[in-house]
Amino acid sequence: MIKVTIAGFKGKMGSTAVNMVLKHAELELVSVLDPFAKETNLNELSGYEADVPVFRSKEEVLTTKPDVWIDFTIPSVAYENTSFAIEHRIAPVVGTTGFTEEQLAELKKRSGELKIGGLIAPNFAVGAVLMMQFAKKAAEYFPDVEIIELHHDNKLDAPSGTALKTAEMMAEVRDAKKQGHPEEEELIEGARGADFEGMKIHSVRLPGLIAHQQVQFGGIGEGLTIRHDSYDRSSFMTGVALACQKVVALDQLVYGLENLL
Amino acid sequence: MIKVTIAGFKGKMGSTAVNMVLKHAELELVSVLDPFAKETNLNELSGYEADVPVFRSKEEVLTTKPDVWIDFTIPSVAYENTSFAIEHRIAPVVGTTGFTEEQLAELKKRSGELKIGGLIAPNFAVGAVLMMQFAKKAAEYFPDVEIIELHHDNKLDAPSGTALKTAEMMAEVRDAKKQGHPEEEELIEGARGADFEGMKIHSVRLPGLIAHQQVQFGGIGEGLTIRHDSYDRSSFMTGVALACQKVVALDQLVYGLENLL
Amino acid sequence: MIKVTIAGFKGKMGSTAVNMVLKHAELELVSVLDPFAKETNLNELSGYEADVPVFRSKEEVLTTKPDVWIDFTIPSVAYENTSFAIEHRIAPVVGTTGFTEEQLAELKKRSGELKIGGLIAPNFAVGAVLMMQFAKKAAEYFPDVEIIELHHDNKLDAPSGTALKTAEMMAEVRDAKKQGHPEEEELIEGARGADFEGMKIHSVRLPGLIAHQQVQFGGIGEGLTIRHDSYDRSSFMTGVALACQKVVALDQLVYGLENLL
Amino acid sequence: MIKVTIAGFKGKMGSTAVNMVLKHAELELVSVLDPFAKETNLNELSGYEADVPVFRSKEEVLTTKPDVWIDFTIPSVAYENTSFAIEHRIAPVVGTTGFTEEQLAELKKRSGELKIGGLIAPNFAVGAVLMMQFAKKAAEYFPDVEIIELHHDNKLDAPSGTALKTAEMMAEVRDAKKQGHPEEEELIEGARGADFEGMKIHSVRLPGLIAHQQVQFGGIGEGLTIRHDSYDRSSFMTGVALACQKVVALDQLVYGLENLL
Repeated sequence: MIKVTIAGFKGKMGSTAVNMVLKHAELELVSVLDPFAKETNLNELSGYEADVPVFRSKEEVLTTKPDVWIDFTIPSVAYENTSFAIEHRIAPVVGTTGFTEEQLAELKKRSGELKIGGLIAPNFAVGAVLMMQFAKKAAEYFPDVEIIELHHDNKLDAPSGTALKTAEMMAEVRDAKKQGHPEEEELIEGARGADFEGMKIHSVRLPGLIAHQQVQFGGIGEGLTIRHDSYDRSSFMTGVALACQKVVALDQLVYGLENLL
Repeated sequence: MIKVTIAGFKGKMGSTAVNMVLKHAELELVSVLDPFAKETNLNELSGYEADVPVFRSKEEVLTTKPDVWIDFTIPSVAYENTSFAIEHRIAPVVGTTGFTEEQLAELKKRSGELKIGGLIAPNFAVGAVLMMQFAKKAAEYFPDVEIIELHHDNKLDAPSGTALKTAEMMAEVRDAKKQGHPEEEELIEGARGADFEGMKIHSVRLPGLIAHQQVQFGGIGEGLTIRHDSYDRSSFMTGVALACQKVVALDQLVYGLENLL
Repeated sequence: MIKVTIAGFKGKMGSTAVNMVLKHAELELVSVLDPFAKETNLNELSGYEADVPVFRSKEEVLTTKPDVWIDFTIPSVAYENTSFAIEHRIAPVVGTTGFTEEQLAELKKRSGELKIGGLIAPNFAVGAVLMMQFAKKAAEYFPDVEIIELHHDNKLDAPSGTALKTAEMMAEVRDAKKQGHPEEEELIEGARGADFEGMKIHSVRLPGLIAHQQVQFGGIGEGLTIRHDSYDRSSFMTGVALACQKVVALDQLVYGLENLL
Repeated sequence: MIKVTIAGFKGKMGSTAVNMVLKHAELELVSVLDPFAKETNLNELSGYEADVPVFRSKEEVLTTKPDVWIDFTIPSVAYENTSFAIEHRIAPVVGTTGFTEEQLAELKKRSGELKIGGLIAPNFAVGAVLMMQFAKKAAEYFPDVEIIELHHDNKLDAPSGTALKTAEMMAEVRDAKKQGHPEEEELIEGARGADFEGMKIHSVRLPGLIAHQQVQFGGIGEGLTIRHDSYDRSSFMTGVALACQKVVALDQLVYGLENLL
């Protein structure tokens, strides 16, 4: 059993993490941390029955001897928490974003010196990370590729960040190539989508949709399609659980879930 | 059994029609017509075993008493052929395009006077016509809709003619509505596709693909998608067979396969 | 504006209906009904700001003069409520299931005498009803069809009720036909799915999925696919809203949302 | 430029290979081989303009100094051809199936001694091989997976060989797990598909379809889908071209295209 503490356990991500750890057969929730908590035990909060101490200070957490420190706090707190965890030989698993390059470098260096594993990741969706890895691999063999990303109609930006990151990753291995017929013509502007080094990206926005992406490759007489569907915030928890199990075997902090897959 | 003759039987469409009629349990091929044919029987041509007379003049065709006249000739010939068929009480099924409005009006009028059914259709793909009909029906209830059409990368124009026709049909019943978030922003131009009265159309072009279209509707908490895949020219033959069976019961020529579905 | 009252407004469906009516531009919520409610106004309940009277008796509801009576109560109450609404010339829109054949017949008869419209429907998902209607229509032309239905892995029965209903509807218009190659062989039992009059049904169960169904037709050289995705209970509300707007123009109660589409 | 000879150039696969090599910018067709050919040059055959010698004996082929020996002959000939190529320091790329374990072992051993690369592959579709590799990788993280394979309705066996191979590859890395709800019930036998170590396989057979496979993973709140569509025999040529370019850099014959990806 891996002993886990969770900082920021009252937020959306943190409370989802609490539920995940409580249900997970190989993880044990030994404590949770929130500097403003009024409760002293998780079972005082509605919806929880587990007997888990709630602490307001980092030092108290040490008494419960966690192996892993899950952190879904705010940027101003997360760096300090992560440093604290490393110094006390607790492997951090951090979903808070907003670390500076210098902070990341310092945390990697220090964790390496102490041989403590850890992970800071902007995205814990295992499926999304695999989709991007597979797309990069396939782009080595199929230079003709288009991305169709589909989201709910409250999304403001198009293409999505994931689509752009996928295109960047494919561009690293793909020979630059303008796709489609050289003389193709748009009867209505925009029909052929956004152009990213010759790859086309199409952004669909419809009510009902959540977050979906399809990377579609074409070759002579064949097609290869990789699709990720995200239905719910809880999708991130597969990655958090995986990280808890893997960081304890690492000897340095890494950035990005792809390093654990 | 419905007796069928085929004009233009040596062309791509015509020869596919010959094969379809020969195999069809309820159709009988009684003759074929080509003014430049050197053969006098179909079985002189490689690939055919059936004993079917080949004629070079329209008048000879009458001796085989067809019920239906399939016509896949060229525009300059098709009007004359269609008129001839109607006058001789043979129901025409015509896939040749390029009739003028006046020609269509005249053929409809004359067929009505003689109570002869018939069909002229630019598209015989039953699946494609059903897709458009279903899309029009769904657009009454779901004003949020995007079209994704996917074709081989030798196609020059985007969006495809079928996509534009589908959008036009939906626009007839759909309240004009600008889709997506009112403040949405394209980080790369074209990401949100072509705009047709607020509906978005995305054109994918990849090697390997043939001709595909997906009409995707979104509503609160749900999605409805209608997709047609055309893999092969032979797809048109389902519609030609259906037309042969239906025109004999009509009492006037109609334009568009949708009138028979 | 159509004036609406909602019986059973505290349940899952009822409270979703309250939110829908409050947001809808053409519907006005004039009262809500629950025999055990302790509140006298909706704004006493957390999450609501609207000033809407809460009643404990049907008779009080009449004082707010509703045009439509939405009912998401329990079977033992719903029949009495629906009768009451009809007698007082309020058009019922009822999502409660469990009416007997006799009750339905009586309600239809009485509503017809009074020229009051109404709807009782086991399923308010417009997209699902359209999918079934389209599938039935397509089955007239494409006898080769398979259903793939995909649900979360907590679902106990396979195939789903919707899949069976879809197959039944297609069987009404489709010539019975054993699909696949006559000599096809299952190397592992069950590969070819469940057989329903020659049509095959495949049930996929995976975590993450919600409720999805794909009806896939094949013809010579082409394919036609109709897919419905249900992401959320709120999907039913499109149908409830539509029903409120349509029943006021009917002169008899009908059973099944398909009668309004 | 890599010099290529093709044995079995008149067969379906062989003639497709001839066309591919003739068009490929980095491959040069120096000769073709068929023991029963009556022509002495490819340009005597209709459809070819290229000036390429046609040989009837293996020894003559050596005069054209090929780097790569493509072999799409019959099993009884392919082993001898492959041995001959290796002995003469020509890298074989062999699509003929039916080698025995002993023959494969012998060819690997001898090619290793001579430091000659080569490939024998039952399947040259790059997209299909990538699909299987990606599925295996994803199965490490998502134990819940179902395969839907879709083929034309002339296919006799279900599931397809590719589906079974994919399932075997996933079983190597996936913890055995019975999927779906433990108490799930089939209302019609076969609904939940074929069972392969707890994974479900569904075989769809419809006219119009060619050869398609979808591997669908489900996790908490997310889904990952990998799909391959094979539209045409020519799809194999991407793999043959790739093999010609890669085998010249190998120092031993390998079995299976996956070793080159």
